[in-house]
Amino acid sequence: MSINAYYNGVFCNKGTISIPVTDRSVFFGDGIYDAAIGKGMRIFMLKEHIDRFFSNAKALDIPFDLSENDLIRILERLCSLANYKCFFLYFQLSRFSPERCHAYPKTKKYNLLITVSEIPEPASDRILSLSVEEDVRHTMCNIKTLNLLPAVIASHKAELQGKDEAVLHRGGIVTECAHSNIHIIKNGKLITHPLDNFILPGISRKHLLLVCERMGVCAEERVFDLRELFSADEVLLTSSSKLALRVGNINEYEYRIYDGSLGDLLCKEMHNDFYRFCK
Amino acid sequence: MSINAYYNGVFCNKGTISIPVTDRSVFFGDGIYDAAIGKGMRIFMLKEHIDRFFSNAKALDIPFDLSENDLIRILERLCSLANYKCFFLYFQLSRFSPERCHAYPKTKKYNLLITVSEIPEPASDRILSLSVEEDVRHTMCNIKTLNLLPAVIASHKAELQGKDEAVLHRGGIVTECAHSNIHIIKNGKLITHPLDNFILPGISRKHLLLVCERMGVCAEERVFDLRELFSADEVLLTSSSKLALRVGNINEYEYRIYDGSLGDLLCKEMHNDFYRFCK
Repeated sequence: MSINAYYNGVFCNKGTISIPVTDRSVFFGDGIYDAAIGKGMRIFMLKEHIDRFFSNAKALDIPFDLSENDLIRILERLCSLANYKCFFLYFQLSRFSPERCHAYPKTKKYNLLITVSEIPEPASDRILSLSVEEDVRHTMCNIKTLNLLPAVIASHKAELQGKDEAVLHRGGIVTECAHSNIHIIKNGKLITHPLDNFILPGISRKHLLLVCERMGVCAEERVFDLRELFSADEVLLTSSSKLALRVGNINEYEYRIYDGSLGDLLCKEMHNDFYRFCK
Repeated sequence: MSINAYYNGVFCNKGTISIPVTDRSVFFGDGIYDAAIGKGMRIFMLKEHIDRFFSNAKALDIPFDLSENDLIRILERLCSLANYKCFFLYFQLSRFSPERCHAYPKTKKYNLLITVSEIPEPASDRILSLSVEEDVRHTMCNIKTLNLLPAVIASHKAELQGKDEAVLHRGGIVTECAHSNIHIIKNGKLITHPLDNFILPGISRKHLLLVCERMGVCAEERVFDLRELFSADEVLLTSSSKLALRVGNINEYEYRIYDGSLGDLLCKEMHNDFYRFCK
């Protein structure tokens, strides 16, 4: 069996991992995670993912005593053991408690789970279809927690409609998608929801803003609503696994998709950054 | 090792249970649960808990193919094997999927976890202390899901302040507590948040309303705010493990606690129902 996972000190095959009932992910979703992609043993934006992972562990008061460098060594070792050409790397930290109890005890114990899966090479020309769902999530969306049920339900509803992702709104205000950040382009300007507790501070969102700066594209971090979404020239999604992709339609509404559009250039540039880094 | 748990067909000791990574509780908190107390092999309000469990499984589209009677037989068998005088019975149903993916696949597989723990006999004279926290939970609180992180954080904050529970509010509107329903008494009338997506339809909440009816106490299901909470004559919490208990203080504010108050009588009557049933 190939090595494609790590659990509390042991490199192993994903299928053999057993989570004890004392892992509070099982009862409460009490933990955080992060995910990155890579190619040829290189993990894209690793420092940013590691920083967010540690900052989320701190936000949830999970006593994670590994150093950043030790975690990086484990992640890199796993990628090397799995030896996939292109991969999706998932790492999860959950709180421990001896008994099921809402308030958590003072302990130095935690559970660290890492998995790696083979994926196709990211391509910038994939065009996405979206459905629209109400955002019924908790309001700690700036932390990448394991409380993902509303995102699961929205993703399932999107899939039932033959869509790739669900764009979420709170009373008409567009926040993000079930597992991506969303951005609109209007009159040559990129508009994206500001960093607050309603969206994840996406690493690819940050990458997109850097690419805008590099390409001299004006980017505005401000709230926008469904009306603006449906009157945008282009719509982009970003996520660590997708990097950046254009949206072809939302519900029945079709966006104009053409080579050389601003959205196309931004997506291509982000994919180029990935391939340059992984070369 | 004593038998105090059940997992997917096997009666076992809690400490030996291993949850596979394919259980979506681990990645998404993708599941539901219920909990009841009992004494001398009798499970209090069992039918109500079973009804809620099945209705929640349906709400989350988890393909649970056990009959109500089969589940009851398993729960009763576990209580009999554990043979505790007074017990807390916890049962959890989670979705299965072969790979981590937000949208869930069509499958007939699920995971059923049940645990039973020994508890002290419920006493109606315990007086609770509360802290106040903002309600940052998702807005599917009418379903008893495993997405409990905001409740975990609120409970921890309460504990840090030496309190038993945290009362939650959304913009001043009192919803419920981290793991109890809350009710106020003013001028001989009980007031409780109406059933909506902001609170759990508590079995003990329902029991309390039945007891009010039986005792000729007027009960009003309507929204109330923090101002009304702090000007109430008495405050009660209900939950399946606590049944009904009075609140002595919230933050620094002290409520008048005395024998024979309406709150005292309601709590005693609910405890009496429990002991009458379990005799």
